[in-house]
Amino acid sequence: MIRVAILGATGYTALELLRLLLRHPEVEITVLTSRQEGAPPIGSVHPSLSGRLERNLRNLAPAEVAEQADCVFSCLPHGASADAVREVLAAGSKVVDFSADYRLTDAQVYAAWYGHPHTDVENIEQAVYGLPELYRERIKQARLVANPGCYPTSAILPLAPLLRAGLIEPGEIIVDSKSGVSGAGRTPSDTTHFPECNESVAAYNVGKHRHTPEIDQVLTDAAGREVSVIFAPHLIPMDRGILSTIYARPSRGATENDLRAVLREFYAAEPFVRIVDDLPATKHTLGSNSCHIALRVVKGRVVLVSCLDNLVKGASGAAVQNFNLLFGLPETTAL
Amino acid sequence: MIRVAILGATGYTALELLRLLLRHPEVEITVLTSRQEGAPPIGSVHPSLSGRLERNLRNLAPAEVAEQADCVFSCLPHGASADAVREVLAAGSKVVDFSADYRLTDAQVYAAWYGHPHTDVENIEQAVYGLPELYRERIKQARLVANPGCYPTSAILPLAPLLRAGLIEPGEIIVDSKSGVSGAGRTPSDTTHFPECNESVAAYNVGKHRHTPEIDQVLTDAAGREVSVIFAPHLIPMDRGILSTIYARPSRGATENDLRAVLREFYAAEPFVRIVDDLPATKHTLGSNSCHIALRVVKGRVVLVSCLDNLVKGASGAAVQNFNLLFGLPETTAL
Amino acid sequence: MIRVAILGATGYTALELLRLLLRHPEVEITVLTSRQEGAPPIGSVHPSLSGRLERNLRNLAPAEVAEQADCVFSCLPHGASADAVREVLAAGSKVVDFSADYRLTDAQVYAAWYGHPHTDVENIEQAVYGLPELYRERIKQARLVANPGCYPTSAILPLAPLLRAGLIEPGEIIVDSKSGVSGAGRTPSDTTHFPECNESVAAYNVGKHRHTPEIDQVLTDAAGREVSVIFAPHLIPMDRGILSTIYARPSRGATENDLRAVLREFYAAEPFVRIVDDLPATKHTLGSNSCHIALRVVKGRVVLVSCLDNLVKGASGAAVQNFNLLFGLPETTAL
Amino acid sequence: MIRVAILGATGYTALELLRLLLRHPEVEITVLTSRQEGAPPIGSVHPSLSGRLERNLRNLAPAEVAEQADCVFSCLPHGASADAVREVLAAGSKVVDFSADYRLTDAQVYAAWYGHPHTDVENIEQAVYGLPELYRERIKQARLVANPGCYPTSAILPLAPLLRAGLIEPGEIIVDSKSGVSGAGRTPSDTTHFPECNESVAAYNVGKHRHTPEIDQVLTDAAGREVSVIFAPHLIPMDRGILSTIYARPSRGATENDLRAVLREFYAAEPFVRIVDDLPATKHTLGSNSCHIALRVVKGRVVLVSCLDNLVKGASGAAVQNFNLLFGLPETTAL
Repeated sequence: MIRVAILGATGYTALELLRLLLRHPEVEITVLTSRQEGAPPIGSVHPSLSGRLERNLRNLAPAEVAEQADCVFSCLPHGASADAVREVLAAGSKVVDFSADYRLTDAQVYAAWYGHPHTDVENIEQAVYGLPELYRERIKQARLVANPGCYPTSAILPLAPLLRAGLIEPGEIIVDSKSGVSGAGRTPSDTTHFPECNESVAAYNVGKHRHTPEIDQVLTDAAGREVSVIFAPHLIPMDRGILSTIYARPSRGATENDLRAVLREFYAAEPFVRIVDDLPATKHTLGSNSCHIALRVVKGRVVLVSCLDNLVKGASGAAVQNFNLLFGLPETTAL
Repeated sequence: MIRVAILGATGYTALELLRLLLRHPEVEITVLTSRQEGAPPIGSVHPSLSGRLERNLRNLAPAEVAEQADCVFSCLPHGASADAVREVLAAGSKVVDFSADYRLTDAQVYAAWYGHPHTDVENIEQAVYGLPELYRERIKQARLVANPGCYPTSAILPLAPLLRAGLIEPGEIIVDSKSGVSGAGRTPSDTTHFPECNESVAAYNVGKHRHTPEIDQVLTDAAGREVSVIFAPHLIPMDRGILSTIYARPSRGATENDLRAVLREFYAAEPFVRIVDDLPATKHTLGSNSCHIALRVVKGRVVLVSCLDNLVKGASGAAVQNFNLLFGLPETTAL
Repeated sequence: MIRVAILGATGYTALELLRLLLRHPEVEITVLTSRQEGAPPIGSVHPSLSGRLERNLRNLAPAEVAEQADCVFSCLPHGASADAVREVLAAGSKVVDFSADYRLTDAQVYAAWYGHPHTDVENIEQAVYGLPELYRERIKQARLVANPGCYPTSAILPLAPLLRAGLIEPGEIIVDSKSGVSGAGRTPSDTTHFPECNESVAAYNVGKHRHTPEIDQVLTDAAGREVSVIFAPHLIPMDRGILSTIYARPSRGATENDLRAVLREFYAAEPFVRIVDDLPATKHTLGSNSCHIALRVVKGRVVLVSCLDNLVKGASGAAVQNFNLLFGLPETTAL
Repeated sequence: MIRVAILGATGYTALELLRLLLRHPEVEITVLTSRQEGAPPIGSVHPSLSGRLERNLRNLAPAEVAEQADCVFSCLPHGASADAVREVLAAGSKVVDFSADYRLTDAQVYAAWYGHPHTDVENIEQAVYGLPELYRERIKQARLVANPGCYPTSAILPLAPLLRAGLIEPGEIIVDSKSGVSGAGRTPSDTTHFPECNESVAAYNVGKHRHTPEIDQVLTDAAGREVSVIFAPHLIPMDRGILSTIYARPSRGATENDLRAVLREFYAAEPFVRIVDDLPATKHTLGSNSCHIALRVVKGRVVLVSCLDNLVKGASGAAVQNFNLLFGLPETTAL
């Protein structure tokens, strides 16, 4: 059995991770941390785990956690996560980090978008961006996986193969994303107060969302030249799911069939990505680690529509997929 | 024009009240108060009023407000409201109070349920419970109207006529109520955080909700003997609406037809209460000042189903109805 | 009093229209039609109107309706509407048509997108597109108003002033729209079945939606040269509201401030259009005839975000606004 | 591997069953039936299964299905199910029947509530009501399991132990249930049309719901004397979940502690039933096979609140639990 721990186990991604790990035949959950006083049982924080997992939340130092875990999942917020991950790595455990701390390869870009200097610059280099569909072999060799953001996964999966194949222009890409409210985390706020966001759809952080440089970086890597997307996220009155509608310009006369063929071939052997004919709905991927992608050419523009569950393929499912790769297990275990 | 002011204009009941008052041909909105700094325009707090009402939120003393208003609507929380209302009354304005402060006739009961002594005991006596269907003539003469709670209105309207007629037993009444989330107010909390309450229904405060003594008091008055209900509220994933399912025991052999006939007669001339044949849905009353009531007898038990919009007939619509009565206007104006 | 009738009074736009007309001081509702048997009372089809409007649904010929109405609102489906409107016009009443039948000036384009020939080509020419912000003076003189589609209104209001001013390129416009489910009408279907569309967001009819030629036509008129947008609608799990996120390319070096200034000036005197600073949410316009518009420039691209209530400014509110213009009443009456 | 088939695989309970069976290590899914033409792949009917299960829907006779399955799950509607189950049993397969056809032990009661005579009266006797918490040993020996209704499970689990212990009166039980819309099945209708049931709560079939005799029968068995409940179901705007609030009268002076102790003891060893302290929300059981139960005594009345996921513990999870018992597997496998 592989011993796993979760840092910051009170949020939604941690809850979803626990649901998946409870089904994982090779996993023993040893430690769950939180700064809450009094070591409450996990069931008091996540009532849905009541009677299904008997563990108390403990306020342990990262090095202590590492002693009891072969793999540590960090669900801490950015900044705090780097501080903890540094110590966990030093103590010898592998890490899957849910935060943004190790996703950006350039610490200056990180500092500019996150508003504070990176506190573990040394470990950025060894971090692998945890999108198995692009970086599987590197993940297998990694000690530190930067689990991708939910929006970036929904944008990168449809775009990367087309950019790699040179079939769309890198310069005119628009990503219009629609996300459920769980993406905003578990801390109540005005914008996530039910009577505010229910029965409403809103754009937010247009052009300013922190997932923008992450999308740009990975697509630039795929394209082999600079990609800079316009990213406009929207809040949708539902718990889970992201649907991204992506507009790009085909290059070299690529037709709808050409483009679809490239996507189908690229993902032919992938267990979790499907190129579908009908326009998808997020409900088709609800609760699963799947990403569905459809493609249309309209008036000379490519329109890609992708969807996934932000808490599964967009977070905890991807983390388990990465964990399976890190430990040489079948990639689909528990997924 | 009648000059009106609103104390505590940042919440949902105040917003709904403003929407109604903007349609009222006899009303001039003079003052809106809040403790917010810097006198922000109302449109910055309620974007839906942007461009429809040019007023700034001001932090004025109640007596100052009273100078500029013939009628003051207090949307302040309980406790704070009594402190302000006392001063407004002393300055000579009429008051419609949305809080619970003047609903209970017994200050001891108030203290027991609300956890602090009443701070304006002297004015309790002159307050009239603002349910026009029961107390219309007294409201017309009042200077202080205690606007009813949303749950109590949904429970009292179906039960009072039957208790008054002696056709149901006062001792075995159960009120199972289902409310939208706006009833919890505008302050974010764990229970109103979208991913917590969406896609979920929960019971809360069973047997402990503060609307219980209010229901008991008004029904006792209707019955002429003590009524003490079991009240179980539930939170429903919708913005607005209350549906109360009420179980009682018929007395004196009353049949379904007898009971329905009493309700129909009682409400025959009422503009806002309808006795309907089909079981109602809260959407039938969404946005209107209506209360729909249906009745069934099942296995010897009366089942009443009532519904209303908690922000209209359950709060701001009732307040406007009371305002119209206070100032001798047609009762349905703006409703 | 102006006598008004509604053809096809059982749907959602008719219900919303009735709610507004019931508040209209100059209106007498004389006839409501439907093909339902037995002349049921309107309250049996729309329970929310129970006790508020005493009219029965009647299966009358258009000419009979016209005899009892100075203005006829047609809420019939496309095709059926033209057949009825032709007769109503011949009988001398004015018409506000909710269908698409008189929106497109070219009967060939109509036939291509709607799949059947137009059956009242003669009257197309006299029809005025019912967007008062663009065509107010023509509406005042009209006998037949083609009430705009909900999506087109959300796309045209932000774009038309900028195209007219030549500040955005006509050739690269993307309209990504998000709509509540009431836009799909009242007939149940798989896609509007609650467990299918709740907790889900989906793209549909990308590049194929029938509102596309309507948007193109009106924007072409505004720009003075051909505009052809890429239109991608999405279904959002909410009752009402449309939010359109629009991507365009500024021309002639126009800055964010330039573009915003043009919008502010264009709409300075308009009662129902607001240029707002913060990114809007559909809830800000829920239940009102308002359209809120915000603007950003991101990486050299204009991003416009507009929102409105699809049943009010996107349908019935616009119809009342047009009605007021047709009959020389203050434009905001009942709105 | 145990070969399983599903009759009527296009509905929501079949989809949920397939999701669970795909995780089941001892199961091979051999046949999925439907009356649809052309043997479409299951992924075209349930897009969420696209790429996860390669089976086509086939229109096979029950006897043919039985040849390829050790266990047949019937998700057919009542009436149709009995016709098929009879043949499947005759062919030697075991059956878990989701319909109501074998739940009621009295064919006369069945005929009265379901409006047609029972067509397989002979097999009623051998059917076991599939609630393992009450009938585990009998289920293990059965060939035909009548999978319980969703509402009955939510009512029976909290009540049966208390009735069995004689601690509540059998004669005054009220069950006020709140259900998500998936309980209404996959066929669109007026009441499940999104704009009708969203943002609304409604009571329906009060005193007339077909689950009433099922609840009465099982509780009568538990109490050892006749139980006849008042059952009032409500439709809640959410996909999944049932919360039942149950009102009963304690007998023999039973206190809150007495009653809770009986429940805790009865369910101490049960893997899927938890007696919780705080009032539960359906979200606590979303997607799991759990039932959470809380208890209060209010003004001398017991108030029980139970919740579960209607598609899991209320249908497909219970079916897998029963399947595990039928085939001697650990009861929690795949759950």
